[in-house]
Amino acid sequence: MKNFILQNENAIYYSCGYSCDNAIYISLGTETFFITDGRYSVDVKENIKNNSEIIISNDLIKEARKLLKKSKIKKLHFDPNDFSVATFGVLSTNLDIKFIEKPNFSKHKRIIKTDNEIELIKTAMELARGGFVQFQNYLEKDGFGKSEQYLGFLAQTFLSDSGKYDLSFDPIIAINENAAKPHAIPSEKLYQKDDLLLFDGGIKYQRYCSDRTVTFGSNFSKLDLYQREQIFSQTEHQKVYDIVLKAQQEAIKKAKVGMKASMLDKIGRDIIEQSGYGKYFVHSTGHGVGLDIHEYPNISSRSDFVLEENMVFTIEPGIYLPNEFGVRIEDTVVLKNDGAVIL
Amino acid sequence: MKNFILQNENAIYYSCGYSCDNAIYISLGTETFFITDGRYSVDVKENIKNNSEIIISNDLIKEARKLLKKSKIKKLHFDPNDFSVATFGVLSTNLDIKFIEKPNFSKHKRIIKTDNEIELIKTAMELARGGFVQFQNYLEKDGFGKSEQYLGFLAQTFLSDSGKYDLSFDPIIAINENAAKPHAIPSEKLYQKDDLLLFDGGIKYQRYCSDRTVTFGSNFSKLDLYQREQIFSQTEHQKVYDIVLKAQQEAIKKAKVGMKASMLDKIGRDIIEQSGYGKYFVHSTGHGVGLDIHEYPNISSRSDFVLEENMVFTIEPGIYLPNEFGVRIEDTVVLKNDGAVIL
Repeated sequence: MKNFILQNENAIYYSCGYSCDNAIYISLGTETFFITDGRYSVDVKENIKNNSEIIISNDLIKEARKLLKKSKIKKLHFDPNDFSVATFGVLSTNLDIKFIEKPNFSKHKRIIKTDNEIELIKTAMELARGGFVQFQNYLEKDGFGKSEQYLGFLAQTFLSDSGKYDLSFDPIIAINENAAKPHAIPSEKLYQKDDLLLFDGGIKYQRYCSDRTVTFGSNFSKLDLYQREQIFSQTEHQKVYDIVLKAQQEAIKKAKVGMKASMLDKIGRDIIEQSGYGKYFVHSTGHGVGLDIHEYPNISSRSDFVLEENMVFTIEPGIYLPNEFGVRIEDTVVLKNDGAVIL
Repeated sequence: MKNFILQNENAIYYSCGYSCDNAIYISLGTETFFITDGRYSVDVKENIKNNSEIIISNDLIKEARKLLKKSKIKKLHFDPNDFSVATFGVLSTNLDIKFIEKPNFSKHKRIIKTDNEIELIKTAMELARGGFVQFQNYLEKDGFGKSEQYLGFLAQTFLSDSGKYDLSFDPIIAINENAAKPHAIPSEKLYQKDDLLLFDGGIKYQRYCSDRTVTFGSNFSKLDLYQREQIFSQTEHQKVYDIVLKAQQEAIKKAKVGMKASMLDKIGRDIIEQSGYGKYFVHSTGHGVGLDIHEYPNISSRSDFVLEENMVFTIEPGIYLPNEFGVRIEDTVVLKNDGAVIL
């Protein structure tokens, strides 16, 4: 696919090693073009990694149309998720070009990670793990009586190392029944002894995301960075936690090159179903991670992907008991020929 | 306009008093429908302010198509900025309905604020102003030797009151030559005595945004919340600051109901041009503020809007000298019959 147009920041970055929040990238045969506005004129020249022609303008779409007209191409591929109806209308009107929809084609290209990309995600995971440790230390010493909102703020502070790193997404901090909502919004609810607390967060390192979830028990051991045991005061919390942990560890252990992603989803799901909690595992097992926090492959019951070496994805089963509590345990792994490795 | 479909979170909130990050809202004659997924089923029932029929589904577009088919309507209005080509394709294919593009129609509806909306924006401004004062106090006592990145983190901390309020946008903290970039990204550059520092930020209060910019001089007086004087060590900083301040204050003083927005833009621009810095004022004078941080009216040389009572907008002229420094001074004001009032 030689003729295509991109507007998505990460898709553009992947194509030429530079991007910014106002850019259009066009590939026409062997030539490529990077269109942006004057704010980025110095930056793009210093940092772009291929020999794209750089065009500076206040009207990116107008410049794109000029290029397309001049090129005399007949077909241009684009991602219909990447353009609004309004932008696409201005771009494509009265051009003698067939625009061909290729949904998520950049994400498909990015599904196998290079060694360098894997290193960057690994670094992002390691840096974020430091934030989780700081958070646990805080919870243990000073956490009781603090609100979800404030703990959420601290989670951001620790993960970002006080603003040094961007976050992959707004971290989730959820206590007890709030943890039963997979996408809880932090409340003024106060953290108390014997509570269960779910923390889902990640950072970006050189644009690459990390993603990890810890469900904290109420009796803190020093957090071993890779061991996942937690000790809960409430029997029901412990029971559910141990089921989710077994599901998660089995999925990690059994992930193999050549396996269908839907089969990997089934491994953990079967364990949760056999324990009688099947209907409370309300989402898929995982998703790819890279420049975007959600990439390919999807690890779900309906996924058509087959797992290959150097795919990077999360394994994050969960059980959510409405109005009671929820447990999720998540790692980001890279798949190697001899199995999945936690990053 | 009775038949329309919305996907934008703020547009939906404005129509029915509730919204979330996965919703579609449809108005068909006298009936309205709110479609969302199971995560929000309790929330929407408790908080929606009109008598919309609530539909819970994992496939929002499919439900929307069902409603549209059943309705027998012939025309439906939508905002082409609000739908991707992909989503719009799935929504509209094989329906016997004419989809009519109405760009930004929700923002047009929202251009005149109610007394209640003005109160919320005023509260957001007051809370944010407290963050600016804390920031100045920090700069004065402990700021020297700290990086832009870390100061940016503190700006977030103070504005959000440690996570209590959402931010209107990622605040800009920019020192000297970085302040010459209207949308600077925080660097590891350290803040030194005699530097100029630009801080642009705001918070949301009950979903309504505030927006304000202070360019700090290096000799701190106690920051008077409404007085804008700053004392700089460098003559050139002071000279440019005083020109921008004059432009900003004159624009605020002369804003009137019935005036063209382009004329308001001209008032400050003329002052900057007469001082010889015209070509360094590289953006428009301001923008409306409300549920979105950028609403109508635009206050620019090409704006067709005419100013009316209870419009809320920023007045934020600036001068940006590349590789040297930049100054911007911004307030959010509400226009009343006897003139603009700073919120």
